[in-house]
Amino acid sequence: MEDSSNVSEEYPMKGGDGPNSYAKNSIQQKVVVDATKELLRKAMKEKLDLEPFNTFHIADLGCSVGPNTFFSVENILEAVIFEYQSRGPSSEIPEFQVFFNDHTLNDFNTLFKSLPQNRNYHAVGVPGSFYGRLFPKASVNVFHSSFALHWLSRVPKNVMDKSSRAWNKGRIHYSNNQDEVFKAYQAQYAEDMECFLRARALETVHRGLIVLNLLGLPRPFVEMVAFDILGSCFLEMAGKGVISEETVDSFNIPSYFVSPQELEVIVERNGCFSIERLETLPQHVVKHGARSASAIAKAAASTLRAAIEGLIKQHFGEEILDDLFSLYQQKIEEQISIYESKTPFVLFVVLKRKTN
Amino acid sequence: MEDSSNVSEEYPMKGGDGPNSYAKNSIQQKVVVDATKELLRKAMKEKLDLEPFNTFHIADLGCSVGPNTFFSVENILEAVIFEYQSRGPSSEIPEFQVFFNDHTLNDFNTLFKSLPQNRNYHAVGVPGSFYGRLFPKASVNVFHSSFALHWLSRVPKNVMDKSSRAWNKGRIHYSNNQDEVFKAYQAQYAEDMECFLRARALETVHRGLIVLNLLGLPRPFVEMVAFDILGSCFLEMAGKGVISEETVDSFNIPSYFVSPQELEVIVERNGCFSIERLETLPQHVVKHGARSASAIAKAAASTLRAAIEGLIKQHFGEEILDDLFSLYQQKIEEQISIYESKTPFVLFVVLKRKTN
Repeated sequence: MEDSSNVSEEYPMKGGDGPNSYAKNSIQQKVVVDATKELLRKAMKEKLDLEPFNTFHIADLGCSVGPNTFFSVENILEAVIFEYQSRGPSSEIPEFQVFFNDHTLNDFNTLFKSLPQNRNYHAVGVPGSFYGRLFPKASVNVFHSSFALHWLSRVPKNVMDKSSRAWNKGRIHYSNNQDEVFKAYQAQYAEDMECFLRARALETVHRGLIVLNLLGLPRPFVEMVAFDILGSCFLEMAGKGVISEETVDSFNIPSYFVSPQELEVIVERNGCFSIERLETLPQHVVKHGARSASAIAKAAASTLRAAIEGLIKQHFGEEILDDLFSLYQQKIEEQISIYESKTPFVLFVVLKRKTN
Repeated sequence: MEDSSNVSEEYPMKGGDGPNSYAKNSIQQKVVVDATKELLRKAMKEKLDLEPFNTFHIADLGCSVGPNTFFSVENILEAVIFEYQSRGPSSEIPEFQVFFNDHTLNDFNTLFKSLPQNRNYHAVGVPGSFYGRLFPKASVNVFHSSFALHWLSRVPKNVMDKSSRAWNKGRIHYSNNQDEVFKAYQAQYAEDMECFLRARALETVHRGLIVLNLLGLPRPFVEMVAFDILGSCFLEMAGKGVISEETVDSFNIPSYFVSPQELEVIVERNGCFSIERLETLPQHVVKHGARSASAIAKAAASTLRAAIEGLIKQHFGEEILDDLFSLYQQKIEEQISIYESKTPFVLFVVLKRKTN
């Protein structure tokens, strides 16, 4: 078996449970976990085939360190148990084994320490990239992944290549740049998703489900305001000589925000799954509510830092982190209306393994 | 499902890969892993029922942080694959999923980082005490555990109780003390092993195997020279006022060294497993070879420190560790012949799940 960590770069969420940790800065993601609970229940009710399994296997891909992964798993479990119970006393509820997956460098120690005490499932950690094989053939009943599949397996090569037309000089992402750079990212995403679907097609049981919460952007817009603003922070710091222009040129965030149409094409090209649900969550569900500009900016900076601090540290060093994110927070607050009007949407997706 | 960490105390091996880590100080255990390879192969050949499994599940209980767990798993895999191949081309080799289990506080991050790159199995980490349930019903084909089952789930309560006849004043273990203290340890071991066997009986597939390397001592001797010497180090430090006598009185090492006869009785009382092998490895196999007294003493101190540093730190604080183990090393060197003549033996055990 190929060790998938060979083919995929790793940039885990910030570990531990300190003030900058992902565990303490993933409230926004939790909002979506709550918002999709009803959709999940409905999908389980309508789409899940309940056979008399000895063990029912659930896998959360890109689980990070918690606690959101535990809420997602609880929601799935609740829905599955409800379905078993609805069938009457004759259908015995199986035991549950839950696989928590993330990169090998993810902080599994923190994840394991924070496992719910009274869980009604057997908990297991699975290290490795979900763009490769992780599980035995036909062994998982329900896959779940929340806010993880916008992370590419790597920065597209051309984007780093000075001689390429896709060289991304002075910028850190394809955002707002519908050209060669965007195309390079798009191609990388299609390739990664094909790897993802090919692996899952092997691992999912007959008529099993994949449930996804994805961050997306509608076309023709490919504007990710958060990254535009972060890019301007890097340029400002380069202008002041704190970092070099070359390090900014060679830094790119490996994430891609898909459109519903694009995802449809990718799933259909793979051919192993039927699309049972593909819907955009209403923006009010995932928005911050009526908070002040400064509160929103502060939350935005914390959330982004927990997610990409490791990536930035690796490239620029640890020293710049505090200044960078304080500058970022300030700029978000200044441009709060554009930031608020153009956040990515959340796609709720349910795929079902076709019968071969 | 009960979280087994509620009922069992945790004292993981020293994590990380620093100079005092278990990863760097478990050579002695490796010698036994190598020595039992042939026994393992033979047991698989004679005792393993090979059905056409979709996935073959192996679990290593008390895996620590590696690397020995990887060698053990490799040996089992090699033997199982060899058996499948011996059946001729018609028997397809299944995929393998390997469960690495240890306490929740074990350093799984280090374990996952050091997983072999070219492994031919799906690797998974399972946090929790093996004295409780860890896996779904009838889901594991081969259990393995090496140098882990001499760790009790806790220090026997009476041993800590001043009003009990088993109070272990001035001592840190039952060693050399065939009385109430020994009986309290013995009862705790019997209770723990019954929990172990009850959980495994549920989790092992029909006619599945449990393969164990256990540290034991023959009766009537219950002398564990290493702990006698460590105890004398504590007393010496208490005499000098470095630690208080009370902390020595209240410190006890939760480990028990079983005899073959005793283990037989426990397995038969449980009733779910047949004993397929129960043999003592020849001492020359597990001995250090022709090394100098000082080299043996140094290795003994490192090995013991990697195993119980956490336990001692929790009770006495970190400051005493260096002095304690340097004193221990010195005393071992002084008493090298008694230390060498009375090390515990290794029991190689194969149990097979009976048909109900």
